[in-house]
Amino acid sequence: MDDIDKALAGARAGQDLHDLVAELYPICRSITGNGVRETLRHIQQRIPLRIEEVESGTPVFDWVIPKEWNIRDAYVATTRGERVIDFRKHNLHVVSYSVPVRGRFSRRELEAHLHTLPDRPDWIPYRTSYYKENWGFCLTHRQLADMQEAEYDVCIDSTLDQGHLTYGELLIPGRLEAEVLVSCHVCHPSLCNDNLSGVAVATQLAQILAASQRKYSYRFVFIPGTIGSITWLSKNQARAKLIQHGLVLTGIGDRGALTYKRSRQGSACIDRAVAHVLKYSGKDFRVIDFIPYGYDERQYCSPGFNLPVGCLMRTPHGEYPEYHTSADNLEFVRPQALQESLATVLKVLHVLENNITVMSANPYCEPQLGKRGLYRTVAGQKEGASKEMALLWVMNLADGQHSLLDIAERADTPFEVIRAAAEALARHELVKETSGAHT
Amino acid sequence: MDDIDKALAGARAGQDLHDLVAELYPICRSITGNGVRETLRHIQQRIPLRIEEVESGTPVFDWVIPKEWNIRDAYVATTRGERVIDFRKHNLHVVSYSVPVRGRFSRRELEAHLHTLPDRPDWIPYRTSYYKENWGFCLTHRQLADMQEAEYDVCIDSTLDQGHLTYGELLIPGRLEAEVLVSCHVCHPSLCNDNLSGVAVATQLAQILAASQRKYSYRFVFIPGTIGSITWLSKNQARAKLIQHGLVLTGIGDRGALTYKRSRQGSACIDRAVAHVLKYSGKDFRVIDFIPYGYDERQYCSPGFNLPVGCLMRTPHGEYPEYHTSADNLEFVRPQALQESLATVLKVLHVLENNITVMSANPYCEPQLGKRGLYRTVAGQKEGASKEMALLWVMNLADGQHSLLDIAERADTPFEVIRAAAEALARHELVKETSGAHT
Amino acid sequence: MDDIDKALAGARAGQDLHDLVAELYPICRSITGNGVRETLRHIQQRIPLRIEEVESGTPVFDWVIPKEWNIRDAYVATTRGERVIDFRKHNLHVVSYSVPVRGRFSRRELEAHLHTLPDRPDWIPYRTSYYKENWGFCLTHRQLADMQEAEYDVCIDSTLDQGHLTYGELLIPGRLEAEVLVSCHVCHPSLCNDNLSGVAVATQLAQILAASQRKYSYRFVFIPGTIGSITWLSKNQARAKLIQHGLVLTGIGDRGALTYKRSRQGSACIDRAVAHVLKYSGKDFRVIDFIPYGYDERQYCSPGFNLPVGCLMRTPHGEYPEYHTSADNLEFVRPQALQESLATVLKVLHVLENNITVMSANPYCEPQLGKRGLYRTVAGQKEGASKEMALLWVMNLADGQHSLLDIAERADTPFEVIRAAAEALARHELVKETSGAHT
Repeated sequence: MDDIDKALAGARAGQDLHDLVAELYPICRSITGNGVRETLRHIQQRIPLRIEEVESGTPVFDWVIPKEWNIRDAYVATTRGERVIDFRKHNLHVVSYSVPVRGRFSRRELEAHLHTLPDRPDWIPYRTSYYKENWGFCLTHRQLADMQEAEYDVCIDSTLDQGHLTYGELLIPGRLEAEVLVSCHVCHPSLCNDNLSGVAVATQLAQILAASQRKYSYRFVFIPGTIGSITWLSKNQARAKLIQHGLVLTGIGDRGALTYKRSRQGSACIDRAVAHVLKYSGKDFRVIDFIPYGYDERQYCSPGFNLPVGCLMRTPHGEYPEYHTSADNLEFVRPQALQESLATVLKVLHVLENNITVMSANPYCEPQLGKRGLYRTVAGQKEGASKEMALLWVMNLADGQHSLLDIAERADTPFEVIRAAAEALARHELVKETSGAHT
Repeated sequence: MDDIDKALAGARAGQDLHDLVAELYPICRSITGNGVRETLRHIQQRIPLRIEEVESGTPVFDWVIPKEWNIRDAYVATTRGERVIDFRKHNLHVVSYSVPVRGRFSRRELEAHLHTLPDRPDWIPYRTSYYKENWGFCLTHRQLADMQEAEYDVCIDSTLDQGHLTYGELLIPGRLEAEVLVSCHVCHPSLCNDNLSGVAVATQLAQILAASQRKYSYRFVFIPGTIGSITWLSKNQARAKLIQHGLVLTGIGDRGALTYKRSRQGSACIDRAVAHVLKYSGKDFRVIDFIPYGYDERQYCSPGFNLPVGCLMRTPHGEYPEYHTSADNLEFVRPQALQESLATVLKVLHVLENNITVMSANPYCEPQLGKRGLYRTVAGQKEGASKEMALLWVMNLADGQHSLLDIAERADTPFEVIRAAAEALARHELVKETSGAHT
Repeated sequence: MDDIDKALAGARAGQDLHDLVAELYPICRSITGNGVRETLRHIQQRIPLRIEEVESGTPVFDWVIPKEWNIRDAYVATTRGERVIDFRKHNLHVVSYSVPVRGRFSRRELEAHLHTLPDRPDWIPYRTSYYKENWGFCLTHRQLADMQEAEYDVCIDSTLDQGHLTYGELLIPGRLEAEVLVSCHVCHPSLCNDNLSGVAVATQLAQILAASQRKYSYRFVFIPGTIGSITWLSKNQARAKLIQHGLVLTGIGDRGALTYKRSRQGSACIDRAVAHVLKYSGKDFRVIDFIPYGYDERQYCSPGFNLPVGCLMRTPHGEYPEYHTSADNLEFVRPQALQESLATVLKVLHVLENNITVMSANPYCEPQLGKRGLYRTVAGQKEGASKEMALLWVMNLADGQHSLLDIAERADTPFEVIRAAAEALARHELVKETSGAHT
């Protein structure tokens, strides 16, 4: 997959990533319903996603596929018909999975169904009630302050009926059956960083990979959070064993530094590869330990699966005030940040694809690099020193026990320098790969 | 042993602990003799201690039970009969195990038998000569300065004869034969922190445990230091294998921070349990590595036994000037400190008693906590977050490989929060215990 | 090998070491040729070195023994016959392995063959061209500035012909067949720290060892760098397995702090022994990880051999400006530094020789040290505390699993204190050695 490098060089500008975010932004997604279907159809225009539908009521491990929710309209209006909260203006205004309501309520009755952020009086919060039937509206705190009338007419024109859960899946086969999983969630309505940033990066990543040589097979899943990964794992329990590395992509469009949350295994190859790439990125970053809270890595890392799946993000959810509010909007995610996130994932995949283990054909003493043109000829000059060090490190650790990533870590040298050294040595038949895939 | 919590809440005030120290303070203990017997009889008024007598001359591993030492009176007096050093005023005045002496000595001859602390001129030092026959007096440096006469009459009315070594033992049986050992020494005369603090805490601990549900059996030994633990181990070499956790309690009444000295094993369950409890105590503490010097843990941790026995203390011996002097008195030990030490031991035992390993009945993906009332129903609200995190941690690590203490350590969460989460999950049959005892 | 201590006490002053450096300084060594032979003959006057000759063209692993290089004279002269660069003044003036040259060259043609150090205008650099036929001169930058004529006469009166590679070897047998390797290089011309410091220390070390009791056999090799160790390993591939510990000695005469570079294994006994000795030296020191660049440890630590051979030096090469210049001269190496380096090696060998594993004859509880005169008799006095602690540590860890170095490390106590304690305990039959050699 050397063409990842080319792909990387040729990666469309972050503006293309941002354009896809903008295209999907207006759609009112939830964990089921037409918003997810419409979102997946947009993605299908770029990559050949297979859309799966799982019927409401289907048991998936400890859970059951819920009823399908759809919404056409919702508002709170004065008795004079003036809409003071209007779903058509912002789809965050209705609590996701609100049951149908129509009637006149006193201001006091209505109170328990209204959600605001007093500290952020201009932002609309995002609320859901998937697994307990309820209804409600989210609004800015300023809107709430203006609601001084005694009674209001309420309408939620939604349906919550037998239907389906919908998700998208794409397998891009490689030379190996072993898979790399890329997972993102598609269940949040008009929220940009929290779901659309991951969706956009995953989509463009799939386009690049489809056009590249690949060692691994790549599986992309675009799923509603939690119930979606549970559903996918339930339907693919045996297949899941093929996953050798995986990443959940989420919240990777904001200005913050990249953050990698390790898999439950903690030192899986994916964990080390991401940490390595971030270390040599020249930028601030954070690597944090697994905790059983967050995104779909919770399911992939449940003890029965314990897959090597980490989570790449920028500022972790909950650490930025815009999280789960209307302020997580098109201004909040940045083309430059999206592009850098994509480039980072590509570099990580480059490590995974090339992380072979080599065995020295010349294990007794060093080979004479000079006679092969691999060494400066007049000793005592400094040029080329780091390339030569990489050659020496590879030869020294090419005992069949060290992958190239192991060598890069021990040599404290970027993976690509080590990989290039191994390639040069292989060309001179000084090392050869010992196994098809390093896991 | 959930009633440990009740016991802890109902633990008699530190004043009761201090009262027991005061009750035992005047008795002149040594490694053998009536002082030990009288001490054990006082303790028997509170707990049903069995008193063991081992005859002088009995071999115990590399040692031999020494002759029994008793003392009625001792003094140094002027030739006019005025006592200038008087055992009846303070039993530290005579070197422990001094042989009988009666006669007139020149001031110069006497010198070699007098011990003072020039740096602490008002304190009497504590000296012993158990294994080499000798005699001597300890006195304040001011007393020594006043001894200006040419000759003095010396009397040590002691006996050093064939007799017994005496110790006390109590087994409080639990559901398991596996034992927790609690060991304290009873061989120091009027010294409060160094021996009576441990004696008082161990006594009240035994009272509380006797009134509690217990998984483990608890073995208490009240022994003379070194020779006592050697004797006990010699007589119980096979039984010692039942000891799964143990604590030597000593010097736990002073104002200093709690200090835990690890067992020779270094990361035994007791070592981790004490460190965990101290970490969440909200107070300063120290955890130090095992060294083969100190108290009876030296014997329990000798290589032939290598038992998981650590030592809980406050300021380590030798680090406070009052150590082994008359200043280690009733003012030096504090009711509050004694109570806190007892509470700490109870919390440690609570960890040991409840440190089960659980196995998930739902290892594939997370269970739906919400439908069991274990989860907040409207997402996006913070209340209950730490309880939920504990539930998620237990479910995530309930793979039969992690004890609850392992989970608490990895989750960086107090054991009790993890235990309560495991209990709630067990009530909903989401986890079950995989083995009776975690060692 | 207790007489190492005596040897150490009686070690000839650093001046003797410096005298040997001075004796060898004028000789023009290279990787082959008469300079090496002459050097080895000087060393033979002190130790019974066996001189080996390996014919040019002989394959040694991936390498081939090069032609033998010898030089009689070399100069650059004005057309009037005035020598402006003169090999007879300093043997660094000619690039080592320069092919024969005789002719008139324009100043411009000559340029490509002249090497200087512009930043150090008074120093002559050291350059070689072993494996590519070439010729050149090294000179001070001031000399170069003065070369203003249009043409110069050049003469290099060298031979590069079929011949031999020469090295010296000495085996000093011990009670065990297992070997300690001491390796130094003898291929640099008039450079003192980089090669002669190691040669002098190795020579005197061999003299001391030959006069001592020895557990291990000691193998000394005086070899040209790189090609010499490759040649030795090639001819002794099976024997190399006998090497249990090894040191490359190089650059150990300058004023800098001692630096130890670990073997590739990283925590071999030699690595721990050197680190231990340096830790208790009371002087600054550095211990650095193995990298596959440096001196002959590169070959000993190639993956097919992976021998436990580290490198002892002072300031690492490349970190001092005098490295590979005429300033690495007799003033640059110091008698005091040479002596301290030798003493350090002797202390390390003392650890290796005495690093036995002992087993307690009294594993159950502590033995009664007092009855054997090993313990202070009146408790509460401080004298002798550290010796007693060493006795207690050895008894506590004498379980057959801990070498004396393990015990010294865990007790944070100098090896010699632990060894003396073990010896005292062995005299009292409290411990005995469990195996002849600890590796």
